[in-house]
Amino acid sequence: MGKGRTEAFSDGVFSIAITLLILEIKVPPFLGQSNRELAWALLSLWPSFFAFVGSFATILVLWINHHGLFTLAEHATPKCLFANGFLPLLVIFLPFPTALLARHLTGPGANTAAVVYCGTYVLTNISYYLLLSAVASPQSIRKDIDSALVQRIRITYMFGSLIYIAATIVAWFHAFAGVLICSLPWLLWTHLSYSNKAGQK
Amino acid sequence: MGKGRTEAFSDGVFSIAITLLILEIKVPPFLGQSNRELAWALLSLWPSFFAFVGSFATILVLWINHHGLFTLAEHATPKCLFANGFLPLLVIFLPFPTALLARHLTGPGANTAAVVYCGTYVLTNISYYLLLSAVASPQSIRKDIDSALVQRIRITYMFGSLIYIAATIVAWFHAFAGVLICSLPWLLWTHLSYSNKAGQK
Amino acid sequence: MGKGRTEAFSDGVFSIAITLLILEIKVPPFLGQSNRELAWALLSLWPSFFAFVGSFATILVLWINHHGLFTLAEHATPKCLFANGFLPLLVIFLPFPTALLARHLTGPGANTAAVVYCGTYVLTNISYYLLLSAVASPQSIRKDIDSALVQRIRITYMFGSLIYIAATIVAWFHAFAGVLICSLPWLLWTHLSYSNKAGQK
Amino acid sequence: MGKGRTEAFSDGVFSIAITLLILEIKVPPFLGQSNRELAWALLSLWPSFFAFVGSFATILVLWINHHGLFTLAEHATPKCLFANGFLPLLVIFLPFPTALLARHLTGPGANTAAVVYCGTYVLTNISYYLLLSAVASPQSIRKDIDSALVQRIRITYMFGSLIYIAATIVAWFHAFAGVLICSLPWLLWTHLSYSNKAGQK
Repeated sequence: MGKGRTEAFSDGVFSIAITLLILEIKVPPFLGQSNRELAWALLSLWPSFFAFVGSFATILVLWINHHGLFTLAEHATPKCLFANGFLPLLVIFLPFPTALLARHLTGPGANTAAVVYCGTYVLTNISYYLLLSAVASPQSIRKDIDSALVQRIRITYMFGSLIYIAATIVAWFHAFAGVLICSLPWLLWTHLSYSNKAGQK
Repeated sequence: MGKGRTEAFSDGVFSIAITLLILEIKVPPFLGQSNRELAWALLSLWPSFFAFVGSFATILVLWINHHGLFTLAEHATPKCLFANGFLPLLVIFLPFPTALLARHLTGPGANTAAVVYCGTYVLTNISYYLLLSAVASPQSIRKDIDSALVQRIRITYMFGSLIYIAATIVAWFHAFAGVLICSLPWLLWTHLSYSNKAGQK
Repeated sequence: MGKGRTEAFSDGVFSIAITLLILEIKVPPFLGQSNRELAWALLSLWPSFFAFVGSFATILVLWINHHGLFTLAEHATPKCLFANGFLPLLVIFLPFPTALLARHLTGPGANTAAVVYCGTYVLTNISYYLLLSAVASPQSIRKDIDSALVQRIRITYMFGSLIYIAATIVAWFHAFAGVLICSLPWLLWTHLSYSNKAGQK
Repeated sequence: MGKGRTEAFSDGVFSIAITLLILEIKVPPFLGQSNRELAWALLSLWPSFFAFVGSFATILVLWINHHGLFTLAEHATPKCLFANGFLPLLVIFLPFPTALLARHLTGPGANTAAVVYCGTYVLTNISYYLLLSAVASPQSIRKDIDSALVQRIRITYMFGSLIYIAATIVAWFHAFAGVLICSLPWLLWTHLSYSNKAGQK
């Protein structure tokens, strides 16, 4: 069983989820605003723009890692298909906690919003972990992939999980600090290599 | 005529249908809620989350079976293209009865909602049956596919149909029991193998 | 220049346009309806269901013909890319005249709605004609394609155009008759073969 | 690392962004309009239709250039993946300034709207420039691509940038003139060739 359609389905979900983000930003209606008023109206949309760019970057990085993870696989086993299903569920869901956070971070419900936000990343990380396990099974993985490479990716994922869990706990007491910690693993995901030799990728 | 574009079109429909599900869940607007109030507002969205995860899992399982079914085909005949068109119609439609059920299952209109819900699965099952017939025709099927395998899949589909029809009838009298029966064939669809040897897949 | 991405882009547009159709159908809100009331509420949605199934079938048939037309091409020339751009514009637009017709066919503005509806099919047909011209150019077409086949497809398209133009004129005087004539070419599009030998396809 | 999935992800984003445009156009509700009234209601939607066709053509031309640019690449390096991520962000965003312009071009806030509109094209152009740099790196580019070709594309992009920056500045003083200048580079993008020999493409 090839992995082409699994990738196509995932690519579809990633690209749609990323595109739907724009639906959250509403064009200011025409009310006879002057240049200055319209500029202010646009600037006051900044939390929407911020959530848009943030969600976009997050889904893009998730996609790049998904792409890397699937280069390890030779075949898409049924186990991969189901593990791969859990991840899109979270990708599709991601704009929800992001919008929740954008609306409530400066209000009295900030902790709840931040815990939901950080908790979603814990789940997302778990879904990558499950997918890695499915991809790394002997029925699925490419023959030329080093077990040391799989081990290195697994440890990176575990390390990311720990940070996300810490962020969720911190967010319970201090919303902003939790969200900040939650953004740290980005350094992991943008630098993680999915090839045997680090320089080759 | 290759089957690449038929799969691409189907993958597109499946991935979009699955992504649109999130549009049903609305982020609670900012009203100065406290942490506790926001948590309650989120928890009270549970029927939406439930319908979201349920629809998601359903479409994912349909996609995995669609994927399996198409591994049997060598060519996409015009008959396949039309048979394959009926299935996306139902995939796209699925969120409608699911949302209907989520809203009305606890109200006085539960039976109507449950009959529509179960009846949609009867139609979905018929569309898989039609697609199997198109794929299993001599012009379309791969040379190395056993007729015993096709027969086994066909019987599984028929068995699923019987359960769905029973569920629809039961739902007329007892909504909740009908929906429960309707979820039984999941065991069939997640375990159905589309390869000659059960262990190989 | 291969034709893979042109097909992928088109498949994306077709599958998204077909999936967005469901957004037009709204789930009846919960108002404590009884089984009978809910059934009536669902039945009263029939124009939406009708427009949904109609638009779906139309886009599916357009896609199948697009699929057939592209099997003739060896390369996607820049001319193909631009010609192919006009068609998605109309595919995306199609739900608009369909919804317009569904809402106004039984009212006093029926003729306007029917003329817009039939006129859209004239434009769609022209876009297929342009795409055929681009695909049939010597830089683009497969070496083994008979010029007689291209000629046969071209005549079928012309014949379809004449029917659509007639339908648009008739719709100006009698809305329902125009729409009826507009549905006749379906017999052409579902039976048109894009291979040298009719039986082979 | 192949470039197939990068293209698939991009194609998904382009085709979804282009399809979502139709959501901006609302079907006139049924209010018992006569033929004449309905025709007027449709004609009064012209700014929406104009923005729809304009955004559509823009995204199509961007896609055709993206397609051309990727024919130069042999491999999708991680650098390409990130550079390629910035472009979809802008493609998804494009309908926003277009709708803003359509609503405010004839009002007192025209300059603000026009500056945002033209400024978006400056950013889009920069994103193509970044993508070209990523694609043209020795790790990514096809062996048979002339450095003269890359140089020619780079100069065209730079020339386009200058026009867009000029348009943004002009729009600050005269909205309409800025938008007009902003549409000039279309001649560049529709005629730019991405192959070694101009006639071959």
